[in-house]
Amino acid sequence: MPDKAVRIARAAADQRPRRPVLLAIAGDSAAGKTTLTRGLVQALGPERCVAVCVDDYHRFDRLERRGKPFTALHPDCNHVEIMEQHLQLLATGQPILKPVYDHSTGQLARPELVEPNDFIIVEGLLPLVSKLSRACFEVAVFLNPPEDIRRGWKVARDTAKRGYTAEQVHAELDRREAESAAHIRPQQHHADIVVRFAPIPVRDDPPGTPLSAELMLRPTIRHPDLNAVLVPTNHRAIHLKLERDPDGRPCDTLHVHGYVPNEEARTVQKAIWSTLDQPGEPPPCLGQITPTRRSEPMAITQLLLLYHLLNAST
Amino acid sequence: MPDKAVRIARAAADQRPRRPVLLAIAGDSAAGKTTLTRGLVQALGPERCVAVCVDDYHRFDRLERRGKPFTALHPDCNHVEIMEQHLQLLATGQPILKPVYDHSTGQLARPELVEPNDFIIVEGLLPLVSKLSRACFEVAVFLNPPEDIRRGWKVARDTAKRGYTAEQVHAELDRREAESAAHIRPQQHHADIVVRFAPIPVRDDPPGTPLSAELMLRPTIRHPDLNAVLVPTNHRAIHLKLERDPDGRPCDTLHVHGYVPNEEARTVQKAIWSTLDQPGEPPPCLGQITPTRRSEPMAITQLLLLYHLLNAST
Repeated sequence: MPDKAVRIARAAADQRPRRPVLLAIAGDSAAGKTTLTRGLVQALGPERCVAVCVDDYHRFDRLERRGKPFTALHPDCNHVEIMEQHLQLLATGQPILKPVYDHSTGQLARPELVEPNDFIIVEGLLPLVSKLSRACFEVAVFLNPPEDIRRGWKVARDTAKRGYTAEQVHAELDRREAESAAHIRPQQHHADIVVRFAPIPVRDDPPGTPLSAELMLRPTIRHPDLNAVLVPTNHRAIHLKLERDPDGRPCDTLHVHGYVPNEEARTVQKAIWSTLDQPGEPPPCLGQITPTRRSEPMAITQLLLLYHLLNAST
Repeated sequence: MPDKAVRIARAAADQRPRRPVLLAIAGDSAAGKTTLTRGLVQALGPERCVAVCVDDYHRFDRLERRGKPFTALHPDCNHVEIMEQHLQLLATGQPILKPVYDHSTGQLARPELVEPNDFIIVEGLLPLVSKLSRACFEVAVFLNPPEDIRRGWKVARDTAKRGYTAEQVHAELDRREAESAAHIRPQQHHADIVVRFAPIPVRDDPPGTPLSAELMLRPTIRHPDLNAVLVPTNHRAIHLKLERDPDGRPCDTLHVHGYVPNEEARTVQKAIWSTLDQPGEPPPCLGQITPTRRSEPMAITQLLLLYHLLNAST
């Protein structure tokens, strides 16, 4: 009789799973993870792409958390080991029975089956928290908006959709600050791409101008040759700069200004798209913030992520 | 950058899990799985042994099942692939977030963390249903009581604890019969030990006499040398016979009659216990059916399983 581990491995190998591409989108609460994710799922199509929120791995429900010395941001407040395990399973083509946290009731509910797909976008507070979780991703993104912008987004969302008052949201943000600093923000050091949506301080853009995007592109993965894309034409509102990241390591920083003219944005998008072996035009759903609001900086950010997803799958 | 699968395996290996021993106790509804399991968990102690019920892997709740062309016994009515995955994880020393089916409400509830222990007893309707699930067990048991006995047990339990009437239970048993025959009973062909608790037909034992046990011991695992245990003394109520199983393969059959004198049973139990490198006496909790009812055939059955668990762990 062969060794048990061998028997298990043999029996498992019979099922020949496919290997999906995994993208992490990490960031603090209300940093814009869901908006970024939505456009990517739509661009790839739900038949090829599934999104998983790892905030469903909360260990305690809202009531149980009241007695605890930490907030939902703390790794001890989450089944991190199970999250790592499920990421490994997805990364090796296995389905998972994912826990479900219901934000509207604050309760843990019946789990749901997630079948691995060609592309899996994993968004949440802690997807990059450990060496093992990070090992599961082809591409890791961290969303890093200025705190005042994020506070505004969080108040708007949690009062509209999760039944809180603005005062409650501000109090909760204050309570969470130490854990944001200790556990959420350090994940940006492990990101291949750090994205910051923000207004340009020195300009006085009219209301309604989309936020600009600043993308720190670390050479931990191979980005499209943006010099080739950007240099030949004289771009006004899209720039690439060779810099150092806050850790002193070399990186590129791509700036896409909110006021970028539509035509300039489209030229750059088409140039990035043309480096991929894909038919047609860049998907038109990219950049959609709401059904009626569009942002070219968001579109270019999503297109860059789409580039990495499609490139990693070949 | 090393290949992703290698990175994941490396990161996972850092956690060096221990390898628990897994025992399957398969059988139809109300076949006595929980009673058998309870004594084993108690004998080993909850600090070393955990029991998992794989009927928690129901895919649909009671309400959803009403519209389905199958009962809860059918593999399609269960997350069999996830059950296999969780068995693999437990068998390789990983924790799982196990789904929970609440029998009292018929609903799927919040999942619970199961940490692997030295010994894991997996009981339920379908633990031996597939090649992959079977590969996870050191020892596989199938409980096979006569149908009239099992019906009596199921009526007693489901009317007392699950809020059904006797008529409802009988109707449900009739509805399930075809799936029992197709999916549950065939698992006995994969069991190392098939256990049948039943009265002895030709005898007229007084009421209250425990049921006899007939244990088919297949040579797929190495059983204790019961010839050495049984032959030297002249046993009246415990016999070992060389036979063929229903598939025509050689096996031993151990009969332990319900009327076995206490002293004879203890002699055999001590002899089996002495073949293990364990201190003291066989655990006194073995054989307990209820707090006030004891069965020597059950005690010897549990002791034999304890033998296999302890033996496999060394």
